[in-house]
Amino acid sequence: MLDIAIIGAGPAGLSAAINGMVRNKKIKVIGRDPKTSYLYKAEKVDNYLGIHDVTGPEMVDQFLKHALEMGVEIEDGKVLEIIPMGDYYALNVDNEFIEAKTVIIANGLGKSKSMPGEKEFLGKGVSYCATCDGMLYRDKTVVLIGETDEAEEDVNYLNEVTNKVYYIPLYKDLKNVDESVEIIRSKPKKILGEQLVTGLTLEDRDLEAQGVFIAKETTPIAQILKGLELDKNSIKVNRQMETNFPGIYAAGDCTGKPFQVSKAVGEGVVAALEAVSYLHKLDAKAKKA
Amino acid sequence: MLDIAIIGAGPAGLSAAINGMVRNKKIKVIGRDPKTSYLYKAEKVDNYLGIHDVTGPEMVDQFLKHALEMGVEIEDGKVLEIIPMGDYYALNVDNEFIEAKTVIIANGLGKSKSMPGEKEFLGKGVSYCATCDGMLYRDKTVVLIGETDEAEEDVNYLNEVTNKVYYIPLYKDLKNVDESVEIIRSKPKKILGEQLVTGLTLEDRDLEAQGVFIAKETTPIAQILKGLELDKNSIKVNRQMETNFPGIYAAGDCTGKPFQVSKAVGEGVVAALEAVSYLHKLDAKAKKA
Repeated sequence: MLDIAIIGAGPAGLSAAINGMVRNKKIKVIGRDPKTSYLYKAEKVDNYLGIHDVTGPEMVDQFLKHALEMGVEIEDGKVLEIIPMGDYYALNVDNEFIEAKTVIIANGLGKSKSMPGEKEFLGKGVSYCATCDGMLYRDKTVVLIGETDEAEEDVNYLNEVTNKVYYIPLYKDLKNVDESVEIIRSKPKKILGEQLVTGLTLEDRDLEAQGVFIAKETTPIAQILKGLELDKNSIKVNRQMETNFPGIYAAGDCTGKPFQVSKAVGEGVVAALEAVSYLHKLDAKAKKA
Repeated sequence: MLDIAIIGAGPAGLSAAINGMVRNKKIKVIGRDPKTSYLYKAEKVDNYLGIHDVTGPEMVDQFLKHALEMGVEIEDGKVLEIIPMGDYYALNVDNEFIEAKTVIIANGLGKSKSMPGEKEFLGKGVSYCATCDGMLYRDKTVVLIGETDEAEEDVNYLNEVTNKVYYIPLYKDLKNVDESVEIIRSKPKKILGEQLVTGLTLEDRDLEAQGVFIAKETTPIAQILKGLELDKNSIKVNRQMETNFPGIYAAGDCTGKPFQVSKAVGEGVVAALEAVSYLHKLDAKAKKA
């Protein structure tokens, strides 16, 4: 069981990680290749105090080096779901489970916009997680919209468990989609339905379907942890970086503007130290009991 | 008129400053020698992401170098008072006035404890600013407690304008105190009074006085800006680092725990960007009028 699971290997996540290490906590960072980050694409960064006039990649490297030198363990993976288990949390990381007493969400900015009907029908036929919800559509027709080739595993799974799946890839080269999957090259425009989803409007036609799965490059956080309070599209936190779940903190761009490295790093340390103080309270409670 | 006056040249103040520069604002940092800071005394700092395993002085130097390279102007001085002037603020810096449209308070942690009666009689005979309040005691007897030799200018001034001044230096070597000042070497214990101050209890005797001036190394922020809302001993801010005064922000240790460089730097950038956005609103309002 981890003391602190940190979702995201950007400035906020790594700052939380090194501060968790300093406090001797058992931590793990679950993140994806930092080269996909906005920071990595920055030509020049000159407003992070103490590191003047570097490129985005140089800054990312310097951050990673610091974290690795301090012994931070970074696991390449995508968190699909966080499940509250009483006094700890279970994280579904690419369908392997990790347990942690506290969680720091530092997964940055979602990159994709939502389409009409998407938010409205979330949980009523719209899902971001094929593995979590596929079985609900055993005898039904579903659509899967895939933003990257990572979705191909999902489409093959849905092809096994559902009656029929349409696959709409939003990227160019298919890699490993089962031959029996019907592939449609068109742009999704709108999700249709009344109480529940009934179909999907594409730019050139309508599809009938009871389920619409969307495999986004970044899974919307509201889907990862059901019931997490948001403020517009950001995670709602107070000055202690607490969310509405005890033991779950958020830091960095996912908590809202300004989208700045310094803010992310600062919030990372606050979240880590609050998590540490929460862990001490858990310990004290356990000793009493 | 400055766009942003920044009080304090520590991590929060310098972070605010470089971010104000990036946004092309006219700024000035008013601070004292960073070598008096807690950070400067740190043997080793390893939890500020990207700068691994440095000493406190190395980190302070690196921060100052970054700020100076970006053209930040730092004025050595002590802010005695911030006076709201409608849509701008006037800052009394060692009795010279600076005007600024916005202010970022980043003056760190006050170092001195208060003694019994001090908070109770603040404004009722207790004052932290001889220059501001000395004239109120024209025909009266006052005491000045000086934490550092910077208080000697104050005692000489009070000696001119009041009937009598007792000087209680809390440091060793006197430098330039007028000969006519009565110097007492004793420890102040308690401020006496009923509605107003009537005297001061020392460890070996009581003094009668109508005013007790305390020249602290760091002036309590509540004295610098009357009406500033506090939360315990910290400045009360929201997630945008706004105080209860429009256009006045706070960042760093003065806003409360954790007392960490990363938090200070992060809050500095948030405060600066909020100040910038406030300035743009002021401009828009001025153009409309």
